[in-house]
Amino acid sequence: MVFTDQQDTFKLLKNGNIASAKGFQAGGLHCGLRKKKIDLGWVYSDVPAQAAGVYTTNVFQAAPLKVTQESIAKENQLQGIIVNSAIANACTGEQGLQDAYDMRKQFAETVGIEEHMAAVASTGLIGELLPMDRLQKGISQINHEEHLGAGKFETAILTTDTKEKGIAIELEIDGQTVTIGGAAKGSGMIHPNMATMLSFVTTDANIASAALHDTLKSITNKSFNMITVDGDTSTNDMVLVLANGKAGNQPLTAQHPQWNDFYQALQFVCEYLAKEIARDGEGATRLVEVQVDGAFTDESATAIAKSIISSNLVKTAIHGADANWGRIITAIGYSGQALDPDKVSVYLGEILVVENGVPAPFNEEQAKEYLLEDEVKIIAKLGDANGKATAWGCDLSYEYVRINASYRT
Amino acid sequence: MVFTDQQDTFKLLKNGNIASAKGFQAGGLHCGLRKKKIDLGWVYSDVPAQAAGVYTTNVFQAAPLKVTQESIAKENQLQGIIVNSAIANACTGEQGLQDAYDMRKQFAETVGIEEHMAAVASTGLIGELLPMDRLQKGISQINHEEHLGAGKFETAILTTDTKEKGIAIELEIDGQTVTIGGAAKGSGMIHPNMATMLSFVTTDANIASAALHDTLKSITNKSFNMITVDGDTSTNDMVLVLANGKAGNQPLTAQHPQWNDFYQALQFVCEYLAKEIARDGEGATRLVEVQVDGAFTDESATAIAKSIISSNLVKTAIHGADANWGRIITAIGYSGQALDPDKVSVYLGEILVVENGVPAPFNEEQAKEYLLEDEVKIIAKLGDANGKATAWGCDLSYEYVRINASYRT
Repeated sequence: MVFTDQQDTFKLLKNGNIASAKGFQAGGLHCGLRKKKIDLGWVYSDVPAQAAGVYTTNVFQAAPLKVTQESIAKENQLQGIIVNSAIANACTGEQGLQDAYDMRKQFAETVGIEEHMAAVASTGLIGELLPMDRLQKGISQINHEEHLGAGKFETAILTTDTKEKGIAIELEIDGQTVTIGGAAKGSGMIHPNMATMLSFVTTDANIASAALHDTLKSITNKSFNMITVDGDTSTNDMVLVLANGKAGNQPLTAQHPQWNDFYQALQFVCEYLAKEIARDGEGATRLVEVQVDGAFTDESATAIAKSIISSNLVKTAIHGADANWGRIITAIGYSGQALDPDKVSVYLGEILVVENGVPAPFNEEQAKEYLLEDEVKIIAKLGDANGKATAWGCDLSYEYVRINASYRT
Repeated sequence: MVFTDQQDTFKLLKNGNIASAKGFQAGGLHCGLRKKKIDLGWVYSDVPAQAAGVYTTNVFQAAPLKVTQESIAKENQLQGIIVNSAIANACTGEQGLQDAYDMRKQFAETVGIEEHMAAVASTGLIGELLPMDRLQKGISQINHEEHLGAGKFETAILTTDTKEKGIAIELEIDGQTVTIGGAAKGSGMIHPNMATMLSFVTTDANIASAALHDTLKSITNKSFNMITVDGDTSTNDMVLVLANGKAGNQPLTAQHPQWNDFYQALQFVCEYLAKEIARDGEGATRLVEVQVDGAFTDESATAIAKSIISSNLVKTAIHGADANWGRIITAIGYSGQALDPDKVSVYLGEILVVENGVPAPFNEEQAKEYLLEDEVKIIAKLGDANGKATAWGCDLSYEYVRINASYRT
């Protein structure tokens, strides 16, 4: 991982996680939804936190998302989150909704908070009912000390992910130390407009829920909504952020002199988690970053970046370390965006492969070597105006097919 | 292949092909663009034919498409088509355009027609210039009798396709026998709005070019634009239809009493070729047909059908013969179309798997067996109104990744 000059305003915490911010705890345990892996996780703040969420745009929104939105709608606050993996509780009708309510109720009672202060999230197979007996037995054990630990939470929320995804950073605001931590899971059904992904961010910053909500929405569009693994937008995607104010800074608003520092720090955490999801995409062997600039608008650049990062042909070419720039050009061309084809230049990292719409001579061996690196950058310079965007994804491998040809069995 | 009741109005010709209609010839030869396989093909009508074309919507339209459009624009007629595979002559700048003009000129001279009566098509790798010396040597041999044969043409236009795609049917119009034949190639970069695909249709029907053009456009939207292999829309897609009038029927217009018969026959040919392209998608092991009905509009049904057929997760599940209907529901849900999730039912063939938005009990073994068949149908009944559409695609296999991870090498 390479950190850029953004670090000037904040500091990355070694082993930082979703429980790094003051007043937060997290944990996980095995309740039997999966054979062995921890499958039930929770986050808890010892005081009520301002809360905001963004949710999948899929018409078939899963039951837990409905319940979570109801919780937040009440007072724009949350104090805890309960999450299970293995079963998504999506397309489960009335019974599924009731199960999500029951999950929320029992969790709230167990940790001693009001029902509407609890959020519920699920991820896994669609269309199966939760085995509530196992889940309830699990929730009843949440307070046992041996289940505490952000690492356990990070594990509990994973499905086909191959590794845990957590981070925390620190910055000073009003002379107070503010911490922002987070955890996330991917890794299939990942596509802009909320990946199949759950992401939870906690901070002890003092910030009102309206500002928190606007910030989350704006940052999500530049981070979680800019990643793709396979173009499929799930029924369960959700990002929640909780801010419990324990850092003691002056309330953060756009007028606060350090607003930008906070915004950038939160963006860094979300971008980090989004990239980790893309990097750990099903079957992925490397992270691909697509940078588009010179588009007529930022929206247009966004559409073009998503078109490139979503192309199966681009993704397989990168998997094969094949500098097949024709596929990049093709994906730009079918993005549906206005652009002058004769002004388009394309780089693989620093290697110019297309200049003003026609091939540039380049060293194939050098390009192949570059494409074998862990992180690959595709840069498209359109030369039309100043619109720009960045998107992240991964290569498409045999392993992706293997995982998804038999996910249920 | 199963033929339906459509056969009442027309007859499938055994070994029918692009040269079955009166006055048409086709051929192919090896000119050295590829190692061994025939790589240069042509179609010729002994009289000028009314002509119409539809072309890729990709901004980076390849040089031959520009030249072909220029040809047709002149008199709405064509008398010949020259096609090469291996190199797409796309993103090749001024030189590429000149090469396409030169190809057209030499072909026209060789077969003795005016330049603007010739169309040019190319398919293959993007960004490389055509080796014009080899191509020119090839074109100079077109009149040699040993190169004649529709089978040779069908082979000449293939790239990663595994088999030739040709058809011809016969019907009676005004007491005259009218023949419609065609040939096509796929098989990667295939997606609605013209697959990476070339498709050529010839008929001896008597029809004015305006009617021919409107018909082709209308039928393309229901056939070639409804197939997908990998979501990538190429720079070189083109469908051309030539009608030389030799059948001697009264001119076909929407007012002709047998207009519907002709329309349906032409649609059958285009749909057949489109399905053959999908069936032969890169790495495909089976044809997938998605039928959507009950949508609010036909346009909405089209978007939903395309969303399902394009989903990597649906495609890999079918590859694994896994009745993972959750992915179908998910793809419906993120299609961006208005629909009532509680009214959606989904069938795999005749097996009901989702009823009114929730899982229906079904026999997993029976579903698995069905999904292993050569042709798989996914049927989504939305129950909102009467909009309907059908789309075709294929499963996503290891082989797709293998082919595309190393296409150039």
